[in-house]
Amino acid sequence: MASSEGNKLWGGRFVGNTDPIMEKFNASIAYDQRMWEADVKGSKAYVKALQKAGLVTQNEMEQILTGLDKVFDEWSKGEFKIKPGDEDIHTANERRLKEFIGDPAGKLHTGRSRNDQVATDTRLWLRDAINTLKELALQLISTMVERAAVEIEILCPGYTHMQRAQPIRWSHWILSHAVALSRDVERLEDIRKHVNVMPLGSGAIAGNPFNIDRELLRQVCLTECVCVYFWTAEFLFWASMCLTHLSKMAEDLILYSTKEFSFITLTDAYSTGSSLMPQKKNADSLELIRSKAGRVFGREDKEAMFDTYDTVHAVLQVATGVISTLKVNQPAMEGALSPDMLATDLAYHLVRKGMPFREAHSCAGKAVYIAESKNIHLSQITVEDLQTVSPLFDKDVSSVWDYNRSVEQYSAPGGTARSSVTAQIEHFRTWLQAQKQKP
Amino acid sequence: MASSEGNKLWGGRFVGNTDPIMEKFNASIAYDQRMWEADVKGSKAYVKALQKAGLVTQNEMEQILTGLDKVFDEWSKGEFKIKPGDEDIHTANERRLKEFIGDPAGKLHTGRSRNDQVATDTRLWLRDAINTLKELALQLISTMVERAAVEIEILCPGYTHMQRAQPIRWSHWILSHAVALSRDVERLEDIRKHVNVMPLGSGAIAGNPFNIDRELLRQVCLTECVCVYFWTAEFLFWASMCLTHLSKMAEDLILYSTKEFSFITLTDAYSTGSSLMPQKKNADSLELIRSKAGRVFGREDKEAMFDTYDTVHAVLQVATGVISTLKVNQPAMEGALSPDMLATDLAYHLVRKGMPFREAHSCAGKAVYIAESKNIHLSQITVEDLQTVSPLFDKDVSSVWDYNRSVEQYSAPGGTARSSVTAQIEHFRTWLQAQKQKP
Amino acid sequence: MASSEGNKLWGGRFVGNTDPIMEKFNASIAYDQRMWEADVKGSKAYVKALQKAGLVTQNEMEQILTGLDKVFDEWSKGEFKIKPGDEDIHTANERRLKEFIGDPAGKLHTGRSRNDQVATDTRLWLRDAINTLKELALQLISTMVERAAVEIEILCPGYTHMQRAQPIRWSHWILSHAVALSRDVERLEDIRKHVNVMPLGSGAIAGNPFNIDRELLRQVCLTECVCVYFWTAEFLFWASMCLTHLSKMAEDLILYSTKEFSFITLTDAYSTGSSLMPQKKNADSLELIRSKAGRVFGREDKEAMFDTYDTVHAVLQVATGVISTLKVNQPAMEGALSPDMLATDLAYHLVRKGMPFREAHSCAGKAVYIAESKNIHLSQITVEDLQTVSPLFDKDVSSVWDYNRSVEQYSAPGGTARSSVTAQIEHFRTWLQAQKQKP
Amino acid sequence: MASSEGNKLWGGRFVGNTDPIMEKFNASIAYDQRMWEADVKGSKAYVKALQKAGLVTQNEMEQILTGLDKVFDEWSKGEFKIKPGDEDIHTANERRLKEFIGDPAGKLHTGRSRNDQVATDTRLWLRDAINTLKELALQLISTMVERAAVEIEILCPGYTHMQRAQPIRWSHWILSHAVALSRDVERLEDIRKHVNVMPLGSGAIAGNPFNIDRELLRQVCLTECVCVYFWTAEFLFWASMCLTHLSKMAEDLILYSTKEFSFITLTDAYSTGSSLMPQKKNADSLELIRSKAGRVFGREDKEAMFDTYDTVHAVLQVATGVISTLKVNQPAMEGALSPDMLATDLAYHLVRKGMPFREAHSCAGKAVYIAESKNIHLSQITVEDLQTVSPLFDKDVSSVWDYNRSVEQYSAPGGTARSSVTAQIEHFRTWLQAQKQKP
Repeated sequence: MASSEGNKLWGGRFVGNTDPIMEKFNASIAYDQRMWEADVKGSKAYVKALQKAGLVTQNEMEQILTGLDKVFDEWSKGEFKIKPGDEDIHTANERRLKEFIGDPAGKLHTGRSRNDQVATDTRLWLRDAINTLKELALQLISTMVERAAVEIEILCPGYTHMQRAQPIRWSHWILSHAVALSRDVERLEDIRKHVNVMPLGSGAIAGNPFNIDRELLRQVCLTECVCVYFWTAEFLFWASMCLTHLSKMAEDLILYSTKEFSFITLTDAYSTGSSLMPQKKNADSLELIRSKAGRVFGREDKEAMFDTYDTVHAVLQVATGVISTLKVNQPAMEGALSPDMLATDLAYHLVRKGMPFREAHSCAGKAVYIAESKNIHLSQITVEDLQTVSPLFDKDVSSVWDYNRSVEQYSAPGGTARSSVTAQIEHFRTWLQAQKQKP
Repeated sequence: MASSEGNKLWGGRFVGNTDPIMEKFNASIAYDQRMWEADVKGSKAYVKALQKAGLVTQNEMEQILTGLDKVFDEWSKGEFKIKPGDEDIHTANERRLKEFIGDPAGKLHTGRSRNDQVATDTRLWLRDAINTLKELALQLISTMVERAAVEIEILCPGYTHMQRAQPIRWSHWILSHAVALSRDVERLEDIRKHVNVMPLGSGAIAGNPFNIDRELLRQVCLTECVCVYFWTAEFLFWASMCLTHLSKMAEDLILYSTKEFSFITLTDAYSTGSSLMPQKKNADSLELIRSKAGRVFGREDKEAMFDTYDTVHAVLQVATGVISTLKVNQPAMEGALSPDMLATDLAYHLVRKGMPFREAHSCAGKAVYIAESKNIHLSQITVEDLQTVSPLFDKDVSSVWDYNRSVEQYSAPGGTARSSVTAQIEHFRTWLQAQKQKP
Repeated sequence: MASSEGNKLWGGRFVGNTDPIMEKFNASIAYDQRMWEADVKGSKAYVKALQKAGLVTQNEMEQILTGLDKVFDEWSKGEFKIKPGDEDIHTANERRLKEFIGDPAGKLHTGRSRNDQVATDTRLWLRDAINTLKELALQLISTMVERAAVEIEILCPGYTHMQRAQPIRWSHWILSHAVALSRDVERLEDIRKHVNVMPLGSGAIAGNPFNIDRELLRQVCLTECVCVYFWTAEFLFWASMCLTHLSKMAEDLILYSTKEFSFITLTDAYSTGSSLMPQKKNADSLELIRSKAGRVFGREDKEAMFDTYDTVHAVLQVATGVISTLKVNQPAMEGALSPDMLATDLAYHLVRKGMPFREAHSCAGKAVYIAESKNIHLSQITVEDLQTVSPLFDKDVSSVWDYNRSVEQYSAPGGTARSSVTAQIEHFRTWLQAQKQKP
Repeated sequence: MASSEGNKLWGGRFVGNTDPIMEKFNASIAYDQRMWEADVKGSKAYVKALQKAGLVTQNEMEQILTGLDKVFDEWSKGEFKIKPGDEDIHTANERRLKEFIGDPAGKLHTGRSRNDQVATDTRLWLRDAINTLKELALQLISTMVERAAVEIEILCPGYTHMQRAQPIRWSHWILSHAVALSRDVERLEDIRKHVNVMPLGSGAIAGNPFNIDRELLRQVCLTECVCVYFWTAEFLFWASMCLTHLSKMAEDLILYSTKEFSFITLTDAYSTGSSLMPQKKNADSLELIRSKAGRVFGREDKEAMFDTYDTVHAVLQVATGVISTLKVNQPAMEGALSPDMLATDLAYHLVRKGMPFREAHSCAGKAVYIAESKNIHLSQITVEDLQTVSPLFDKDVSSVWDYNRSVEQYSAPGGTARSSVTAQIEHFRTWLQAQKQKP
């Protein structure tokens, strides 16, 4: 056996050398070292279980615990040195432990497969990751809700298919995106629950033949599950949903920040310039947010999990920064409201006089056509002209041409009326409070 | 306005003709007609809400309800004729309703956007779809559990990385896949809950300005949500997870059905032959199951939802058929057990005598190497030879070479011991009973 | 053997019945019947080779050819009836042939596997499909080029990151998309070449043991390749690139058709309305084009090939329709030009006076900042103010503020100068001419 | 302007600070520093063009060239220090150049946008990358061809659907994979050609207004194209095809290395053990190769390009290592041949006596069924029993039961006959020779 093979976990029977490309190819230490803390904690819990099962003595346990604490210290001070042959974080930590305490280190792996360790470590790491992302998402939602509260009086066009549809409150737009994010937070909670649930069975294949107290282990470090794959897949799916939501919000904001819309201005801290064109101020922060959706699909390994975490971690913070610092151009927003956006109201006006909606929709459509043909605003058509479309039109049609009245009529939950938006803001404040108080 | 445009929902102001390619391109009737039942039911609930809000009279409501019943009848008898211009199921049903009852049909759309209808219909359809798939999944799990109960005595190799690892029970293999599927059933329940939850807000954009009793609607047909996108994405993700689980099971079974393994034989009903080679009997059913994973990723539209549903619907049934009819070749399975699969037990044997596991692993590895060098079975090494590896070896090592004893030592939950497997079978029977009694 | 199994190709040894779900699951006739013409042609060529190899007599060959002609006739008249058990187009045609001519039909499959047939048919079908798509792409490019020729005088902003960057010609925008499409056409040619190349080897596995004249077959119908997978993958990749190009073009046009930009107006034939909002005119044709990119990724089977073909086939035509009928709003386009878009020119002005570009970029940036602070246009800053930024500024700076001069200075190939754009138009006209004359 | 902003390329007008998360999020230096060599070379060519166009003096050019050489030196010695603010390789190199030579460094960017630089650098880098991968692929093919030449006498089962189909030569299996790889090499050549072709137009948007000698630049460093996206997409598609081919080969080899097949044994250098089970020897190298297909789909950015390159670079070498070192177990391969694999030959035997193939296929199928019922080998059925299936059977049927004769009958190009395989080997040797002599 070549001595360079000595610290490989399967060192016993190998007589050849491993192709170094193969070795590098197979190694995960470059990314899984992020789980160092989880790995040390998991091993500390495991050695206690081993001692309880009589597989290590009290003394050996104490040596191992002390050694693991030294390993922990090195990592937390940034002094841990990865060596060639440390193919993953588990090998690296055990190799270092052996350097500290010698032979007893070899007992730590009794009845535990590498898969067990990977599962435990991932589980612990993922729980922390979920907590952090939840906190960042709540900060973003909170920023959105408070901004919506302050700017509740600002009206702007609501768009569907990028065409002006109906007048809405700017706060209504903000909160519609907050709703999606609040669901993301709730889904994240679900995943955390799944990560905490013990699987029915377990074990590499056949299980663990020693009487290791799984109940104990579970409470301390949730050790034995081998279902890393599921959590990772669920987490990646969640991330792609969450990034899709943020991407959609960013897409709108990019549009609103064009010169042509001029609804919002990004602060310099979230813009970049052009190395060629001095006047350019690009909404790069928003473009980055927009582009991240889709990135996380398609791979389902641990490397993807870390990459995805970093992406969501950054995106949530940049989004919070953007939302909290952008300047709203109220005159531009309200200047973009135009009477044709009240065509639905014109139809409803006829519905209230008893006309079936399909017919009313058709009449309002004809009125729009007349206005376009005459090159005037819909609100400027004379009552006489309207009466050629339907005799139900009368002078009282003038009441339709009021954007504020239009948004105020939608007072059901989720509507654009001041009262509805205020209720939603209150709802969110309560919800945020409750979320923050959860364990 | 060209008369051919007359039954388009936005017919009022259009003066040109629509490019027929564009029209066909835009149409969804080819696939969304599957939701005909949901669409009629949703409209029946909506018209009742309209009447309560005073937007249609009692008489109009009755006409509409009667007309909708006629539409329903035509669909259920297979007599509904789709016409050019019926671009989706909603347009088609409303067109037919108008042919039955005339003008009052036009009132049905008051305050309801197409998006509302799509959402309602998808919601209702998806609820039924989820119930059906759940039932099929439970049938499959039940088949697996009962098969596991009957064949509990059969041992076979457990494989990792397609290499023989440790002896297990054949029932253990079956149940490990049942565990994954049982989680899929639970996730499906979660999705059904999400489909049933009302969103905070709603409305195309601004909401619904009439006092339509949303509470009523919700209880009857859950009308207003516009979050089809989320459910669809969740459903597709679920399907891809479930198909991945079945794919992995199929992958193992394909391997087990090769001539070289010969562990199982598929019944003719789930095999196909070759048009060229007369002796071929291919495991096409399993190959189809295996190939379906991955199919459903990447698209998130309604067409994908139907396609995915059909795929899972067929795969679950074919899998049930395969599992219930395959023949197990017990001698082949047990013949594949070989003493080197007990090398872990050999290491544990030393651990029980006080050796650290890492060292014991290395000793067992050396024993494997000796056996390979001498071209004998691991169990055939003499005690003398073993003692060159470790003085701890003694005559009692002979107790290691017993496959039955090996599987029996894993008696923790999820282990391979007869008692553990039986406990899992009982657990599943109880769980299945509980699932079947849910609403 | 059940009689219902009689027409299955592997009917000989099967004693059970096939699960009907499995049968349906396995069948491809629903989509592969599109290749009926290729299948009949391929079989006609194959029987001639069989006769030459002495495996069928002259008389049998004639019977088979006559029978195949009858099958062809039924398909072309729409009278071919698919029966249960016709699992793919090959089985269906052979079954029908047998009904026409009896036993000799059984000789047609000698030495030919199903895979051979699939490959031949796909090859023939794909060649035709490629030709059709190429023609449609050329029509689109031609439309774009001629539109660019007519509207060469119209200036508009060029955008990067959706922010106004530099003034360009509208024709320049059109041609930049034509360039991408012209490359797609060239790539399509490459794929056609691959489809026509004979592979080194062939055969299901072992090849064909009879002396069938492969050279003859190749020239007639390219029969034996089994590399359908490669062509399909290449074709799908091509389609996704082409759809991505069209998607990007559509994305710009959707933006340009917003009320806020108002650069273009779609004709009614390529717009749709809203069932709720009477004034809405949505750019649905463009949204559909935009959404199709990405649809074709991820699956690589024959069903995907047909689906993708239909998508590209429709998208190219709708895009041609949109481009040929949209109205350009020249005043809006030119009204969107603003002096800050000449900031790069301002920097170049300093570069021409000897200043390093980085410094000039910084000076122009400061000028932009001054203009913003004073809330005036960049062109309105006084020479005195400019001189606070750099003493190199002088009265001749006024020559910078001319959009026409700005676009004219880019006279290199691919530039925005009238001469460059005209040269590109000429280049395309020649290229289109050459493409149309290819075989 | 904050001094910390000083080295940003758009530093002029920015007054705020950039959010550090945003800055990190936006930075690409972590991966694009790999293009340092291409970046320095591109800048050296560009400054020569600037001098020719009169935009820098001879003296400035010389200073810049000397400075760039120093930058080059630092990188090649591993001494280049990346500083905060170096957001990409272009900024980093220009920052360092300025530290070396001061102001003239600022002239290097005249008329060149960041996109220009990215395109040039990517182009140069990708050309080198393609050359390297081509060389590695040729090494692998060469290894396969020479192994096929040496082991041409070994027969083994050919499998379809993982079921034994027909006897083939082991060399035939090897070469079937070499064919796919040889096509990959040819496709790679095509991509290199595309990378070298100049686009019709160019420029960030409007082009380059100075008379920079594009012809010169093109020959030296191919500077101006902005079509990085296309090459990247093509390269990623190529990589995913190539990895798919290697994945399929690995899939077969994993199967062949199971205990149950025992056709091949991997050398220790390409295997790994288990940390738990001492006897395990996993085909990890093959599993890694198999798993890499699919990894590269879905992202199309520069980071993906580097990641993909590294993957293919490692996979090709590991595959070469595996193929050159695996041990073939000829007795196991030939022991897996069984008479039922000659059922197609049995059918052909009847075809040669004049029976239509479909009927002969059915007769051979019945013979297989008889053998299975009697639990004997197909070759052991008596002539009498065969005659109950067809009177055409006679004593001469015994000539069918010869594996060697079976493979020898396929003597067409690509067949399994010794002569065909030898011809293919010769073809490959010639082709490899030609490939190596290409520029």
